[in-house]
Amino acid sequence: MNLSPLNEKMLHGGDYNPDQWLDRPDILKQDIVLMKEAHVNCVSVAIFAWAQLEPQEGVYDFGWLGRIIGQLYENGIYTILATPTGARPAWMAQKYPEVLRVDSSLHRNHMGERHNHCYTSPVYREKARQINVRLSQAFGKHPGVILWHISNEYGGECYCELCQEAFRQWLKEKYRTLEALNHAWWTGFWSHTYTDWSQIEPPLPRGESHCHGLSLDWKRFVTHQTVDFCQKEIEAVREGGSQLPATTNLMGFYKDLNYNKFQDVLDIISWDNYPDWHGPQDPVDLAAEIACTHDLMRCINQKPFLLMESTPSTVNWRSASKLKRPGMHMLSSLQAVAHGSNSVQYFQWRKGRGACEKFHGAVLDHYGKSDTRVFQETARLGNRLEGLSQVCKTNLKPQAAILFDWENWWAAEDSQGPRNSGLHYKETVLAHYRAFWKLGIPVDIIDMEKELSGYQLVVAPMLYLYRANIAEKMKKFVELGGTLVGTYWSGIVNDTDLCYLGGMPGGGMAEVFGLRSEEIDALYDGQYNAMSFQGVRYRISELCDLVKTNTAAVLSTYEDDFYAGQPSLTVNRYGKGKAYYLAAKAEDAFYVDFYRLLAEENGVAPALDGRLPHGVTTSLRKGSQDIVIVQNYNEKPATVPLNASYTDLETGNVLSGTLELSKYGVAFLIKAEL
Amino acid sequence: MNLSPLNEKMLHGGDYNPDQWLDRPDILKQDIVLMKEAHVNCVSVAIFAWAQLEPQEGVYDFGWLGRIIGQLYENGIYTILATPTGARPAWMAQKYPEVLRVDSSLHRNHMGERHNHCYTSPVYREKARQINVRLSQAFGKHPGVILWHISNEYGGECYCELCQEAFRQWLKEKYRTLEALNHAWWTGFWSHTYTDWSQIEPPLPRGESHCHGLSLDWKRFVTHQTVDFCQKEIEAVREGGSQLPATTNLMGFYKDLNYNKFQDVLDIISWDNYPDWHGPQDPVDLAAEIACTHDLMRCINQKPFLLMESTPSTVNWRSASKLKRPGMHMLSSLQAVAHGSNSVQYFQWRKGRGACEKFHGAVLDHYGKSDTRVFQETARLGNRLEGLSQVCKTNLKPQAAILFDWENWWAAEDSQGPRNSGLHYKETVLAHYRAFWKLGIPVDIIDMEKELSGYQLVVAPMLYLYRANIAEKMKKFVELGGTLVGTYWSGIVNDTDLCYLGGMPGGGMAEVFGLRSEEIDALYDGQYNAMSFQGVRYRISELCDLVKTNTAAVLSTYEDDFYAGQPSLTVNRYGKGKAYYLAAKAEDAFYVDFYRLLAEENGVAPALDGRLPHGVTTSLRKGSQDIVIVQNYNEKPATVPLNASYTDLETGNVLSGTLELSKYGVAFLIKAEL
Amino acid sequence: MNLSPLNEKMLHGGDYNPDQWLDRPDILKQDIVLMKEAHVNCVSVAIFAWAQLEPQEGVYDFGWLGRIIGQLYENGIYTILATPTGARPAWMAQKYPEVLRVDSSLHRNHMGERHNHCYTSPVYREKARQINVRLSQAFGKHPGVILWHISNEYGGECYCELCQEAFRQWLKEKYRTLEALNHAWWTGFWSHTYTDWSQIEPPLPRGESHCHGLSLDWKRFVTHQTVDFCQKEIEAVREGGSQLPATTNLMGFYKDLNYNKFQDVLDIISWDNYPDWHGPQDPVDLAAEIACTHDLMRCINQKPFLLMESTPSTVNWRSASKLKRPGMHMLSSLQAVAHGSNSVQYFQWRKGRGACEKFHGAVLDHYGKSDTRVFQETARLGNRLEGLSQVCKTNLKPQAAILFDWENWWAAEDSQGPRNSGLHYKETVLAHYRAFWKLGIPVDIIDMEKELSGYQLVVAPMLYLYRANIAEKMKKFVELGGTLVGTYWSGIVNDTDLCYLGGMPGGGMAEVFGLRSEEIDALYDGQYNAMSFQGVRYRISELCDLVKTNTAAVLSTYEDDFYAGQPSLTVNRYGKGKAYYLAAKAEDAFYVDFYRLLAEENGVAPALDGRLPHGVTTSLRKGSQDIVIVQNYNEKPATVPLNASYTDLETGNVLSGTLELSKYGVAFLIKAEL
Repeated sequence: MNLSPLNEKMLHGGDYNPDQWLDRPDILKQDIVLMKEAHVNCVSVAIFAWAQLEPQEGVYDFGWLGRIIGQLYENGIYTILATPTGARPAWMAQKYPEVLRVDSSLHRNHMGERHNHCYTSPVYREKARQINVRLSQAFGKHPGVILWHISNEYGGECYCELCQEAFRQWLKEKYRTLEALNHAWWTGFWSHTYTDWSQIEPPLPRGESHCHGLSLDWKRFVTHQTVDFCQKEIEAVREGGSQLPATTNLMGFYKDLNYNKFQDVLDIISWDNYPDWHGPQDPVDLAAEIACTHDLMRCINQKPFLLMESTPSTVNWRSASKLKRPGMHMLSSLQAVAHGSNSVQYFQWRKGRGACEKFHGAVLDHYGKSDTRVFQETARLGNRLEGLSQVCKTNLKPQAAILFDWENWWAAEDSQGPRNSGLHYKETVLAHYRAFWKLGIPVDIIDMEKELSGYQLVVAPMLYLYRANIAEKMKKFVELGGTLVGTYWSGIVNDTDLCYLGGMPGGGMAEVFGLRSEEIDALYDGQYNAMSFQGVRYRISELCDLVKTNTAAVLSTYEDDFYAGQPSLTVNRYGKGKAYYLAAKAEDAFYVDFYRLLAEENGVAPALDGRLPHGVTTSLRKGSQDIVIVQNYNEKPATVPLNASYTDLETGNVLSGTLELSKYGVAFLIKAEL
Repeated sequence: MNLSPLNEKMLHGGDYNPDQWLDRPDILKQDIVLMKEAHVNCVSVAIFAWAQLEPQEGVYDFGWLGRIIGQLYENGIYTILATPTGARPAWMAQKYPEVLRVDSSLHRNHMGERHNHCYTSPVYREKARQINVRLSQAFGKHPGVILWHISNEYGGECYCELCQEAFRQWLKEKYRTLEALNHAWWTGFWSHTYTDWSQIEPPLPRGESHCHGLSLDWKRFVTHQTVDFCQKEIEAVREGGSQLPATTNLMGFYKDLNYNKFQDVLDIISWDNYPDWHGPQDPVDLAAEIACTHDLMRCINQKPFLLMESTPSTVNWRSASKLKRPGMHMLSSLQAVAHGSNSVQYFQWRKGRGACEKFHGAVLDHYGKSDTRVFQETARLGNRLEGLSQVCKTNLKPQAAILFDWENWWAAEDSQGPRNSGLHYKETVLAHYRAFWKLGIPVDIIDMEKELSGYQLVVAPMLYLYRANIAEKMKKFVELGGTLVGTYWSGIVNDTDLCYLGGMPGGGMAEVFGLRSEEIDALYDGQYNAMSFQGVRYRISELCDLVKTNTAAVLSTYEDDFYAGQPSLTVNRYGKGKAYYLAAKAEDAFYVDFYRLLAEENGVAPALDGRLPHGVTTSLRKGSQDIVIVQNYNEKPATVPLNASYTDLETGNVLSGTLELSKYGVAFLIKAEL
Repeated sequence: MNLSPLNEKMLHGGDYNPDQWLDRPDILKQDIVLMKEAHVNCVSVAIFAWAQLEPQEGVYDFGWLGRIIGQLYENGIYTILATPTGARPAWMAQKYPEVLRVDSSLHRNHMGERHNHCYTSPVYREKARQINVRLSQAFGKHPGVILWHISNEYGGECYCELCQEAFRQWLKEKYRTLEALNHAWWTGFWSHTYTDWSQIEPPLPRGESHCHGLSLDWKRFVTHQTVDFCQKEIEAVREGGSQLPATTNLMGFYKDLNYNKFQDVLDIISWDNYPDWHGPQDPVDLAAEIACTHDLMRCINQKPFLLMESTPSTVNWRSASKLKRPGMHMLSSLQAVAHGSNSVQYFQWRKGRGACEKFHGAVLDHYGKSDTRVFQETARLGNRLEGLSQVCKTNLKPQAAILFDWENWWAAEDSQGPRNSGLHYKETVLAHYRAFWKLGIPVDIIDMEKELSGYQLVVAPMLYLYRANIAEKMKKFVELGGTLVGTYWSGIVNDTDLCYLGGMPGGGMAEVFGLRSEEIDALYDGQYNAMSFQGVRYRISELCDLVKTNTAAVLSTYEDDFYAGQPSLTVNRYGKGKAYYLAAKAEDAFYVDFYRLLAEENGVAPALDGRLPHGVTTSLRKGSQDIVIVQNYNEKPATVPLNASYTDLETGNVLSGTLELSKYGVAFLIKAEL
């Protein structure tokens, strides 16, 4: 047990808060017994334990933590050790009010909740450094500790004077001169020209809230400052002597932070996943959305990641706390594995007795025994994960990519017009993704800073803002033979949200697509247009781009309204490749049919040959042996055709002809060697 | 006319604001004439008259008030005299800003509205004491004054530093040590451990808003401080020499204050009742809800009460101001009497000319004459009340009780999970109550501090939080032969909102019910399950408790979902009694059928034997002669079967076979002696 | 080109912001070329250009502006010159925080947005004066400048201490004594009696928000202060030596300001019009609403006005940015002309590159060339306007008027009761107006300060508050032979919102209508009553007034509810005229039938004899030759019967029998001389 289990076996466990139970040694003892019964091999400790670790300023009490880590280790359970900065002790808030966050109304928060601190505050940074160094000194080389869990779910923003000043410094470094900034933000509009750096404030509801360039840079700054804080936390851990890898638990499509900027700071990506199974959303749509989120997280560094939190049962913060139906916990957990996770971790091991998360699902209920449905399902999963160690050593390497870019998300949805009732950027990306999910074709989700050169097919929905040389990269990608799919409302602005002059899409992409967008018509909710493609009619909604083609060939046209007959889908040969332009938002069926065609034409293969039944998808983890994971989201069994022989990784059985999956069933297949 | 009319005759009248009309002696004179025409015998005076009574600090002008009280008395009209603390003069707010309330954003209010003062402020308390003493000295022995109307509709809360400090003192007295408080509130969660009393703040939107123990104690403190303020007001009245009884006008199911805590402070309970007749709600449901509210108010001290405010016509604060249809004023007023009121009072006698209540219904319109429908209906009711003096000497003494507890309301609905879109505690209690209403069975509505020993049947819906030894009391109640009905989501936490360990319901009640609750599933709005009982199928919604029975017998099971076949209704023999456990929220029809059965089995009798037509209910005021009140909420006549002979209290007619009630009709029956 | 084109030819052009493009002389040059191509003859310059005109305090840079005005003039394009006070430079906000507005929470805004300044601030007033004087000196006699565009879309309110003190001064001048104010506001209610002027604050969410008299006077003060600011701006322009006429761009039914109070301050009325064509509203209803708004604006001084802003394409601030369908720009623009406009101006000429209006429609897109649909449609309109110079010299002079009064709007909708879910005052006025629109009868929209004597028919819907001697004026109007239509909820309060005593409607109008309103019943949304008139049954909603007739004759009665059979429509002969009283809100069909009858009886003629097809309306501009404008809002051609011969103003063709209008067609007809 001297070797780190990371990438060697599937981790199974979750957040563990013994600090809340130190007066109950009987319960702490029972925890160990029951963890073993549940096949738990790894827990995350000390998240939110600052008040326990440093009960008075400068007075540290690590004894209890050492005992816990030791007992866990003695029982074969690894520790992911957290830095406790997700919440701070009351004494700190009382003595140093500057550590508390200021909201956009410029009122300082009071002590309370979590994530309620200023990322800029020198006091907070120093206090965090001090405890991180000490934790690292104390436990950074403990054989039971395998990973640093830096803080917890970073998020939010602070508008205090310290942050405002840091923002101004960041702007100075970026723009150098006020002239450059004034031009970039187009401040001449409404007479907002700045004549002194000190006049600049963040976007404020009671100040400037409609200067898009400012709003966009503020969001970039918030990400910058948060990443910087995280980096400083890791540096403190290094200062304390620990060389263990570091992660922080992210939150998927969390709009406030551009998670791709964490790429260079974190050793391992991890995230917290709470799907609303059995809720109002169509289960297949939900499954695809979660799959996409896993891929989004995985693509931050394009390596396997950790599922750091999930619930074995229910959450307590939705409108209705639905129980996970029998079998769903297994399926949902293995979905993460299918998309690149090397762990299944929970929030949390044992329910607390009080405060606002006491009814959040946990492995162990207040009841305290193992003869519950939830405990038993968890234990069965833990047992199964023990048989999947081989999967840890593989990775996903798709041939297709969909562009999803946080900064584009911010800019497009902060904009006034063309459809303030919803541009639905994320939902639009998901609509494209769903087609790949249904076709069983693995796909990466990347932002504009990533390279395109490794793919055969790149999809770039609603790329309103161009940055990071994306126009040049797309152009080159097509020139060299790639197939690019672009859509309406793309190439509208540059990276400071200034419109391109001379015709959209800008940056030279009008030439790549062989057309110019002249006007864009917005449809109200409930309004539709239509187009036909390859003999099938598809519904159109939300936005209709009216384009003037140049070299592009028209593949489909609008059927209704005054622009009936004008192009709705075009293709342009450019260099060795092709650039498709979809002028309007289509319905799901179109994307499935369209991408099936494009995938076939471009040799982009599904994980498993052949058509999949509804509700079934496949993914592929590549390694010394490629592993195909087949998942069934139907509430009934499914029969999946197999065009080759496969070996079931878990049973060793050889399968051919068909694969029979039970309701919510998952199979790990290895292509049988011929 | 030397004797107080309290409990001797039905009071009829209402709020009277001559202070707004002192420049119009013609109108004041006309008031007396018209009051007599309307059979008004009692008015409430000086509510909100502080600016008139003390126009400058320390300068009192009581002359006008003395003249009004005197003229009323000379004309046979009694006065309920208010202390004027519901609103304060502008000079006071200007000179002593501390009297103004601070809201939870910690901003101090400006002068305006009403009920806008700090209950803790020493200045406000002293100013209130001074004027109350003087009012008592001046009028406390006036033969025309019969009752003190202390302030008006106490409500709201203040977050000023004075209140915060009072809260900390209250906490110190309650918990003694920070260790005890930290444990009770489970502050280890999110590192909120307090290390100094001064760190404690009330729940704040911009501070701590999710610590349930804190939120619960804050609400308790607000009730405590309000009751204390009320008590101090009464002490001032006593200091002034008056021994007249005191009341304050409550507001039914007003969530912010635990009205049961006023029990020991007030001599008489009174309340303000504004049903939304002819509005969107089903009239029978509304009638039952108002009936329940009367019973709730009556049970504060389990004696007759006063209806202190109601409208003879319409209110002006609903989305639509519906006129009371002809006859509804009579029915609605006598409903109060049926449930224990010894008065029908209005807000208000005469409409004001300006400000925000000028379109609130009143006996006298701006028109100013008596030839209006509203005036005439009011006069007819006044006339009828004069014939009901005998009713004043009776009281209600039901055999069944439903538990409704304010602190449970606060705690259950402040909780995160299991159904944030609505636990509907009050509505659930009302659903149980409606069954008794439809069956014509009188019932008490009591909180956990009341005794259970006098009842045959006790219903305890959704008793999430156990306090005041309720588990012990329920256990003993069943042991000694009582029938108890409990439900899902009961016995989850103790009185500081800490979860019971070892299995729910806690406090030993799992044994009484003979089962353990393992999980609870929440249904979204519009989702349903079902169960059958005695051959009838009932719909289930909102919450489904999954229980493991031990000694309990299963009476019904779920029909759908993965828990189909698991128990939805059980019964357990315990001691000499029985404990039923309803695991899910049922539809109304179930409660009617279920409680009819339980009432029959337990000898809990309706006020009138036999089945009642839809929309008709009965109540029973017990005295030297028992009086059955029969009410018809249908918009058409109803025929009620009589299994015995009765004398109509008002007509003296002897009735047998059937009672014919007109649309909106009410009858007062005395069982004929054989 | 030395004569001002005002009232000589139709202006065509719009807002032009060269200050945003000073670094692009190529673009500025291209602007002139393209303006001429678009038949643009007039642009508005320097709106929001303060930062460019006064880059540092006291340092003015007008050179660029002079060059622009000169180049425009040399190319035959006139300039409407703006004062730049719609937004202020950052340096001013930084140096003089008092210029920034304080909101009703009493927090001062930060620099940002527009219209964010205190109208009372002496600093702001002085800074505005200084730049206005200088602009006037520089350009006030330039032959290319024809009109002052004072600031931009005045609006909003400020609660700073300066404004509060100005409000108190305004109140002192109005009421003289606190006694008078206390009585007028009925402050005795809830003990709000003021004993010192300094106690008075504006209506505040955290202070007094329900004293209607206070709220009403505050709104009057805000209008007063805004008009005063505007007047001071014009005085500065005069001080600088310019005698050019002045306007400010208003916003139609903008609730916050009583635009009629600008009548004496402005030389020309202008307004900004952004209909939601092709949106969710019925196109005929929308067309009538916009027509009504044009008439409202025209009636401020009952002279031709200017359409100062409109969009050639789309706006960017609606939920969906619908493109104007081909032809709608022509129709919508000529609708303004039909109702009295002598211009069609746009926001804006060229789209900006950045900030929040960059996607607002403009004549020139970011694309920058004229070969777009929008540019071409604009140019066609410009060409057509050149042929309509004769229309500029005419005016509208209707025989009928509808009363719409801002102060009544404020008072009625601020009131509590009788229908808080919506009194819909504006919508009710529009319902009456729609009937006239459908009948093709021109109508004025006037407030209570206007004279009634010139009309045959006056409609006064829901005139809750009587002021400006309106009761006397209506009485005299009827006495002398006029026909008056009044409705429910009229004559309830006097001009300080105090209810009339002795019976409604007050002010003597009960005698004029020959009845008294006793009660008013509110219907919930979705509830209806009905009445029949002349054999047709009409639906009734929202409010039902229950009246007692005296001398009035009953024309129709309610059909449902307890007031079935009571009057719903009455008429009373009074003097030489007649006063109708409509007791309830009817459906549209009633108004059409009712007003057709009244128009015929009273000789109120439509612009064109005969019945109009659905979706077609007519208006009449009277001059040396009367011009009938016929507009078709249908998406298909319409045939309009002609009962006389007409000459088409634009083609010279003589028409008789029928007029054939294309989809969205407009014709200008002159009655052929016989």
